[in-house]
Amino acid sequence: MSALPKYVGLDVGGTTMKAAVVDDAGKASAAVVMDTNSEDGQKAGLLTMCETIRRAVEVAKLTLADIAGIGVATPGLGDIRTGVIIDPPNLKPWKDVPVKAYIAEAFGKPTAYQNDANAAALGEFWVGSGKDAKSMVLFTLGTGVGGGIIIDDAVIEGAHSHGGELGHLRIDQPDRGRLCGCGARGCLEAYASASAVTRRAREELASWRGPTAMKAYYTANDDDFDAEVIFDLAQKGDACATKVVDDTAFYLAMGACAVIAVVDPELIVFGGGMAAAGWFRDKIADNVVRYGLPYPVAKAASPVRIAFAKLGSDAGFIGAAAGARALVRKV
Amino acid sequence: MSALPKYVGLDVGGTTMKAAVVDDAGKASAAVVMDTNSEDGQKAGLLTMCETIRRAVEVAKLTLADIAGIGVATPGLGDIRTGVIIDPPNLKPWKDVPVKAYIAEAFGKPTAYQNDANAAALGEFWVGSGKDAKSMVLFTLGTGVGGGIIIDDAVIEGAHSHGGELGHLRIDQPDRGRLCGCGARGCLEAYASASAVTRRAREELASWRGPTAMKAYYTANDDDFDAEVIFDLAQKGDACATKVVDDTAFYLAMGACAVIAVVDPELIVFGGGMAAAGWFRDKIADNVVRYGLPYPVAKAASPVRIAFAKLGSDAGFIGAAAGARALVRKV
Repeated sequence: MSALPKYVGLDVGGTTMKAAVVDDAGKASAAVVMDTNSEDGQKAGLLTMCETIRRAVEVAKLTLADIAGIGVATPGLGDIRTGVIIDPPNLKPWKDVPVKAYIAEAFGKPTAYQNDANAAALGEFWVGSGKDAKSMVLFTLGTGVGGGIIIDDAVIEGAHSHGGELGHLRIDQPDRGRLCGCGARGCLEAYASASAVTRRAREELASWRGPTAMKAYYTANDDDFDAEVIFDLAQKGDACATKVVDDTAFYLAMGACAVIAVVDPELIVFGGGMAAAGWFRDKIADNVVRYGLPYPVAKAASPVRIAFAKLGSDAGFIGAAAGARALVRKV
Repeated sequence: MSALPKYVGLDVGGTTMKAAVVDDAGKASAAVVMDTNSEDGQKAGLLTMCETIRRAVEVAKLTLADIAGIGVATPGLGDIRTGVIIDPPNLKPWKDVPVKAYIAEAFGKPTAYQNDANAAALGEFWVGSGKDAKSMVLFTLGTGVGGGIIIDDAVIEGAHSHGGELGHLRIDQPDRGRLCGCGARGCLEAYASASAVTRRAREELASWRGPTAMKAYYTANDDDFDAEVIFDLAQKGDACATKVVDDTAFYLAMGACAVIAVVDPELIVFGGGMAAAGWFRDKIADNVVRYGLPYPVAKAASPVRIAFAKLGSDAGFIGAAAGARALVRKV
């Protein structure tokens, strides 16, 4: 690897965790993946995190002495400032896990902590779609909808670690909107997560009168009938699937419009499995132009750029490393 | 005045403009007010701005040599970076007015430019309700609904000068929501500005079956039947007026919830004529607790603080001066 300062970025997920050495220019060595096995408890989880970090250093043919800092990203809910995972729905049965303190003590290195969506945003901002932007908002579309906001190189973490909780932007009324996993109604996540897309597709199918290839999936379980299938059918011109995808683009644009009215970023990036095809990007962008604020300054309908993420699942550990880098440079 | 560095803050409004000398601790001398008379054209307007600044210095018994910098705030739409008012609905017939460059040239001082709502937010953050906060969002409730967002001492101006356009947060569907002055439907401003409150009160009155003192205002024009009257009647227990005020608190809380999901500030401040009575603050806060994100970190339902603005119409020139101060300190 280069002679630049090096960091380890670790991205802990509900199923696996992934780490790699990343240099000061954002170039990553090969990544190491280990099972999270959260059901084995948080002590085992912390040991696996340390082991994943050690292996990433080995794989890069380095020693720990070569590492300037470590960055860790985990799912929420966490307290970003103290680096504690509080009550994570995707890492059961963990509770109040002092990730940052544990890893800092284990390795004796400057250690940064972030939530996973903020880390992904930072990764895309550093070396992905946001590389040339000064401000960027990332929507992550997966089982849920997450988000991360970066203005002038800094992540908006929020006063209570809630910055960029974009899945809980309300896009419909709190009394009659769809029920979200958070207990509230009308949240973007209840409309535009991968599972919400499948649910809406089943509803559409139940009342659909015309021909549609989606009928073949009527009795399928959600492993066979998922967002990917629906997007594939829409791309092939299936009218029912197209309706579902068009609605998804509209809902995501509602989220984008809210973000524009609040922080007005230079760039909005969508990441996750759904964010792959250019025609879907165009559908979102069309809705943003139609429903977003007019922009007097640039004298264009909507000069906010809409793009898809570039780094895939590497964004998390690259962004975690970016957090370590920011910490080391500040010291 | 003190021996601290001094700045002039000028807040240009649709009807009047107001300036004062503000010292480095945020203490203002007596303010000078002059008529804007935008109908006399932008050249006359720029001359009046300069005259207002000069008089503010005189009133403070200082000379221009005592002034370290000048800050100007104006209504939008403007380009904050270049300091140009582009196409201001409240300053007709002005177009593309180079405010910052003109004032910088006229006085030969470092000159900062902001939009009026951002300046008010900065004023409240510096010496008003936000004095002890690290991050703050201001909603200004007047003819329209404006906003300003401050995170870690910096105003979120936005990539296209649209940061904090909180009146255009959408709180209802873009197809069936109320029509906003911006041409879109469902914007917060169309529900919670002073004129929107009066409009909603007239609608409520038209279908109200029970007793209400609002009936006396049935044929009144909007000068006699305004938001102040409605809030007064609600405070006295009038059921119809209470319904209108309760709905207003709900709408404002929807705006607050969106801001929480995006930037998660420590403090949300409401300013303007409606933001005066503590019981109204409580109604907004109750709705935020009910409809906002739960806060795991603080283990409280909603630790975001909700407060009313303290500086009244002085917030604008104090915040404009704060902009000059930030500029001078950066140089």
